[in-house]
This record gives sequence, structure tokens and C-alpha cells, in this order.
Amino acid sequence: MNSFDELWSELAPIGRNASTGGYRRYAFDTAELDCREWFVATAQARGLDVETDRNTNLWAWWVPPGIDPSAPALVLGSHLDSVPDGGAYDGPLGVVSAFAALDAVRDAGVAPDRPVALVAFADEEGARFGIACAGSRLMAGALDADKARGLVGRDGLTMGEAMSAQGFDPTTLGPDPERLARIGEFVELHIEQGRHLIERGAAVGVAESIWPHGRYRLTFRGVADHAGTTRMQDRHDPMVAYAHAALAADAAARATDSRATFGRIEVEPNGTNAVPSTVRAWLDARASDEPTLESLVARVADAAASGALTNGTEVDVTTESTTPLLTFDAPLRDRLVDVVSRSGAGSDVPVLPTAAGHDAGILATVGVRTAMLFVRNPTGISHSPDEFAEPVDCHAGVDALAAVFTDLAR
Amino acid sequence: MNSFDELWSELAPIGRNASTGGYRRYAFDTAELDCREWFVATAQARGLDVETDRNTNLWAWWVPPGIDPSAPALVLGSHLDSVPDGGAYDGPLGVVSAFAALDAVRDAGVAPDRPVALVAFADEEGARFGIACAGSRLMAGALDADKARGLVGRDGLTMGEAMSAQGFDPTTLGPDPERLARIGEFVELHIEQGRHLIERGAAVGVAESIWPHGRYRLTFRGVADHAGTTRMQDRHDPMVAYAHAALAADAAARATDSRATFGRIEVEPNGTNAVPSTVRAWLDARASDEPTLESLVARVADAAASGALTNGTEVDVTTESTTPLLTFDAPLRDRLVDVVSRSGAGSDVPVLPTAAGHDAGILATVGVRTAMLFVRNPTGISHSPDEFAEPVDCHAGVDALAAVFTDLAR
Repeated sequence: MNSFDELWSELAPIGRNASTGGYRRYAFDTAELDCREWFVATAQARGLDVETDRNTNLWAWWVPPGIDPSAPALVLGSHLDSVPDGGAYDGPLGVVSAFAALDAVRDAGVAPDRPVALVAFADEEGARFGIACAGSRLMAGALDADKARGLVGRDGLTMGEAMSAQGFDPTTLGPDPERLARIGEFVELHIEQGRHLIERGAAVGVAESIWPHGRYRLTFRGVADHAGTTRMQDRHDPMVAYAHAALAADAAARATDSRATFGRIEVEPNGTNAVPSTVRAWLDARASDEPTLESLVARVADAAASGALTNGTEVDVTTESTTPLLTFDAPLRDRLVDVVSRSGAGSDVPVLPTAAGHDAGILATVGVRTAMLFVRNPTGISHSPDEFAEPVDCHAGVDALAAVFTDLAR
Repeated sequence: MNSFDELWSELAPIGRNASTGGYRRYAFDTAELDCREWFVATAQARGLDVETDRNTNLWAWWVPPGIDPSAPALVLGSHLDSVPDGGAYDGPLGVVSAFAALDAVRDAGVAPDRPVALVAFADEEGARFGIACAGSRLMAGALDADKARGLVGRDGLTMGEAMSAQGFDPTTLGPDPERLARIGEFVELHIEQGRHLIERGAAVGVAESIWPHGRYRLTFRGVADHAGTTRMQDRHDPMVAYAHAALAADAAARATDSRATFGRIEVEPNGTNAVPSTVRAWLDARASDEPTLESLVARVADAAASGALTNGTEVDVTTESTTPLLTFDAPLRDRLVDVVSRSGAGSDVPVLPTAAGHDAGILATVGVRTAMLFVRNPTGISHSPDEFAEPVDCHAGVDALAAVFTDLAR
């Protein structure tokens, strides 16, 4: 038994919406600040030194006496924020498991030969300001600080304004090469967002790669008008152009075994009896390789443009973020497979690709040695209140992470 | 010259959104209450007796000494609320013109032989609670009071709760046959929401009929999931089913010279990287006759159902409101044409059908003699910040209404 269950139950009520059962923990809002407080208290109760870095990522350091604090650190963690009405596991499972693994390592009397840090990266989902992995991207120099500060959130506040309102200093945002250089390895445990592990009959797996992916904002502009009196041929209705794009995205993704999703849409003025003036729709697109991704997005953009052309509207396609194909460090990946299989998770530890972006992927692109552990998800469902992992699998994840911890920290 | 310009400028700033230039005056919100205050003050300044009826419609009575207050009244007016980011004219033009016409009639020394009332009907657009012409429908018994009280608005409050919060008594809502019986004729002046008058070269026209029309809520239900990791074939994405319905609506309306609009949509959870769990979309449909309207709605519902079937989602279609074909009272209509043409608006006073619903249409369906005057709209645009009428045409509308007032009140 380990400390996982107690830590899990502490975090469970924060930001949970009672009517949907989903979580709403968005960067710098009340629920996310409560998660930060939980992280600080949990770390301090363990005697760890807590700091918030210049990009608002949270770090908890364990540097035993006699250890050179400047030696390359072993870093474990994930993130605490959520998508709108997301599940409990995506992010928090990795942070809670890191604390539980640290407890298990200490209970076993193991002391590291190098610094260890637990981390909670800021704004991984990008639910408020639109750019995923904002905290790790800023640290890695993959997101410009001025651009980040100016990102406008759902409530109309910019990231800079939202930070200032909560006592964070937005002027400190930016690349953090000194901190990056301190990371020897970063291991992120995460709930699987798919069905590989359930099909393979394994509680824990190791990541092989992350598909290239991107977010694109399509803004369809027409002319607001009366829904009753405006003849169809006189309309400039951006909703019709959007519908063409939505169907094209679905068809193109199916044809290429890729993913394309329009999950977020904003309509103005959004009145039943008014032809809309503007439809903004966000495309999330992912594919197994970059040429396929580019061709997928091009097909959606073409359908949007031809749909717009047919009814006299206009469409702009803005790339909000893109992430290239990421293959995790092969020696570290193989070492994790070896350690986890010897630790009792069974000899078959699957090695999996994923189409989900992660902070581990961002850090890997700037040369940090990173690896990921996945914990079995019985339905594959994620980004939903129905997201779930069996407690026994969560405990297996902690055991695996503790084994990796012990192996890498010495 | 008349008092129109001054009254118009008083009302113009209320509820105007500075960034869009559109109006946001929704039932029982601050801007709409400010419009009510303006109505009361304007009526009291003219010595009219103001009352708010049991359905929150506003009435201002002119019953000269010696006139039987129970005699059938001449009623002039329209509404003050707006669609989201609507124009300045739809509704308020009729109310302001009624006051200006009253001023003109008094300036000319004319005294009515019967009671006269100016009216502002409540919640004509249905922008907050989804049912258009709620105030006149309730009065006419065409909207059940329990149903109205329970309608949930955009902010989650019911109509009953919203009324109570502003000091209105929701228990009084319901049919008002005594008040209906007091109306001898109701004449509503309105900006034209189309281009008939600009094509005919006339400043003022008279209404012939209102197309049958309805509002339908389509609720597409799927399963929220991760936009990256969920294979297309494993999804239950309600957005795709909705897109099929949106394109079918556009095509069916074009094929039948009807109107079909999806102007309002709500997506849950509305996250870029989440397959939606629910898409709610509101269809506004109108046609020149009822069989065509029914067939149009059936085609959209069929497309929604087959779109849902292909990807394992479900769709419910709920009729929120329907209004049958309405032909205005022919003798009253002909009398208006005669009076307006003799008043100086030119011998050609067009008689026009319209696809827009109005309180005049609701009252006509329960036997009230009603008529409408339309004022030229140079672009035809309505339900938009770009809605406009030339001042000279607004003045011509007041002159026409004053002539009708003089003719009918004696």
C-alpha cells in the first residue's frame, strides 16, 4: 500500500463541477490556484523545497545532504489543469503518482545520489488561452513571451492580465535555459488516452512517440441578418461554410487514419432568428507523420474556402500551435521497459505511440531526455467526466514509477 | 417636423454594445428595464396613464374626457427588446413612431372619439428564453403560463426567476381576454426586413400576410472524448451529425424558396481538444405555406437523424414554437392603403408579405383586427447592427401612422 489513495482523495474535489461530474481547472482560475496550494502543501509536508519558476511551473526539490545541487536532476511529474469538464486523471494522475512514488522510495530507505524534483507544469491543456503546454513551451522557448502574455482567454482577459490579477508577474515569462539544463531526465506518468493497454492486457506501458499535431482557428465571416426575411440567395451565412469544413475534416481524417476534431465553436451573435455574422471554429488535427498532417489540414482549409466561396463569406485559417513528430529517447525508453518489467508489472510492458501532446514531448524537442509511463484506461475515454482508471492500475503505476525513480536516482 | 428625432435619440444609447454597435436588450435585463423606464417617462410626459399588464406588456392610455373607456380602443405600438446585437429599428421604430404620431395628432388639434393606447409588448424577440412574442402569446393564451415561467434563459435563470429578481410577479402570467376584448384595432409600424420597398421605390408599405414559421431545438448527444487519441471509428461526435443537418437545412430551403437558419448553437464541453458530448442547435424555419414548412423541417430532421446514425450519436428534435400562416384583416388593410396613399406617401403603397413574425400576427390569430405598416430599409438587413432606415423614411412612417391614427380614432 502507498500514499496514493490519500493524496488522490485530497485533490478530487477541487474544481469538480457537480452537475457534469467533470473538472474545470483552467490556468490562473480559482480551481487551478487551489490545485497549486495542494501541491505546495503536499511538498512542504515532505520537507521538499518548493519554487514557482518564471513561467509559473511548480517545482518541489529533494536534494539530500551531501548531494551537489547543480548535478543533473531526475524530474517526475505532469500537470494539474484540465480541459473543460475533463476527467480526474489526465495530468493529476502523474503528479499524485510522483508524490506517492517519492513516499514509496523513502519508505524503502532509498536515498538518491542526485537531485530529484517533482513538477507540475502550468496550463498544459491550454483550455483558457488556446495554446497547449504553455508552461513547458515558454520554458523551452517554443512560445514567445509577448505572444503568450497577449493571448486572450475565454473571459476576455489576456494571459498577462489573468496572471497579474492573481499576483503572478507576467514580465518574467520567457525561456529558462538554466532550468532546462538542470533536468537530467524527465519522466511523466499519464493515464493512457486510448485502448492499447486494455487490448494488450497490461496495467502499465511506456511511450514510444507522439504524433505530430496542431491547433488551427478557422474564422468564417459573413453578414448578420434576419433569419426570416433574408432570402437564401441574399445571405452570407458563415455557418454553412463552417458545416462544409466540419464534414470535410471528418472525411479526411477517416480516409488517412488520422484525427480531426471541431470541438470548440463560437457563434456571433448566436441568436435563433439571426443569420450569424461570425463563426469561429477550432480544428484539432493529428496524424502519424507530418506530410499526412499537412495534407489533412490543407483539405479542411480547402473545403472551408470553397464552402465560403459558394455563399459569399470569407474564411481565415490561423495556426495557433503545431508540434512535430516526437520520438522519445530510445535508451531511456528501453531502460524504463526493462525496469518496469523487472519490478513486477509483468514481462510484457507494451511500447506505445500516442496522438496526445504532453509536456514531455515539448521538453524532448529541445534536447531534454524524457520518457513517459502510461496507466491502463479501461474504456480509452479521456477529456471527459467518464475518464477512469482502476485503483489497482493506479497503484501499479505508482509501483512502476517508484521502480524507475529508484533506478534512475542512484 | 415631428417629435420623432428627439425620442429616437433618447432611446438610442440604451443597451447598445460599444464594440459591435449592436443592441442587447433582453427580457427583464438591465437594458430592457431601462427601455421600460423610457416608455413610462415618455408616456407620463404626455399625460398618458401607464400600466403594466399581467404579462408585463406596457400600455399608455389616452382616454379624453367624455369618452367611454370601455369602448374598443385603437392600439398602436410594437416592442422594445432586441435579438443579440440587433439593430436599433426592429421594434423601437414602431414604439417611437407611435409616440411621435400621437404628438402629431395632438398638434393638429385632433381628439379621438374612442380610447387610444400605445403599447410595448414584452419579449418579442425571445432572445433570452427562446420563445418569440412571449408577451402577446401569453396574453392571447397561445403560450402556457407554466411553460413560460419554466423556460430557462441563457444565464440559467428561468423566466419566473428572472421576473421575480426584477420585482415582477410571475404568478400573474396568463391569458388576458378582458384586455384583448378592449382592443378594437392594433396597428404595428415596423422597419421592413427585406427589399420589397426599395425595389418598389416606396417609403411606406402595408402588410398582407406573415409566413408560417417555427423554432426547433435539435439536441445532438454523443460522448466526450480526447480529440487526439480517439480513433475516428471509435467516436460518437455530435458535431458531425449537426454539420449534416446544417447543410441539409440550407439545401432544402434553397430548393423550396423557403428559409432555414441555424443561428444559435451551444457545444459542450466546447474544448479544442475534446470531442463534444452535446451540440444543441436551433433551427429557425419559414415558408410561404404550411405544407412546405412541414416538409422543410422534416427534411432537416431526417438529415440530422441519418447523420447521427452514421456515427452512433442521437438527436432529439423539439418544437419550441410554431406560428401558422397569418393573413391580415383585409378591410383594415385596404383602409390603411387608402389612408396612407391619400396622406402624401404617393399613390403606390405596396402591399407586402413578410417572413418575419410579429405581435400583430399573434393577436390576429385570436381574432383581433390588426394591420402593419412597413418602413423602407435600404439594404434589407435586419437583426444586425447594420440595420438602418433613412431619417426621411422614418418621418414618412410617422406621417403615415398619424394619418392612420386620425382616420381610425374618429
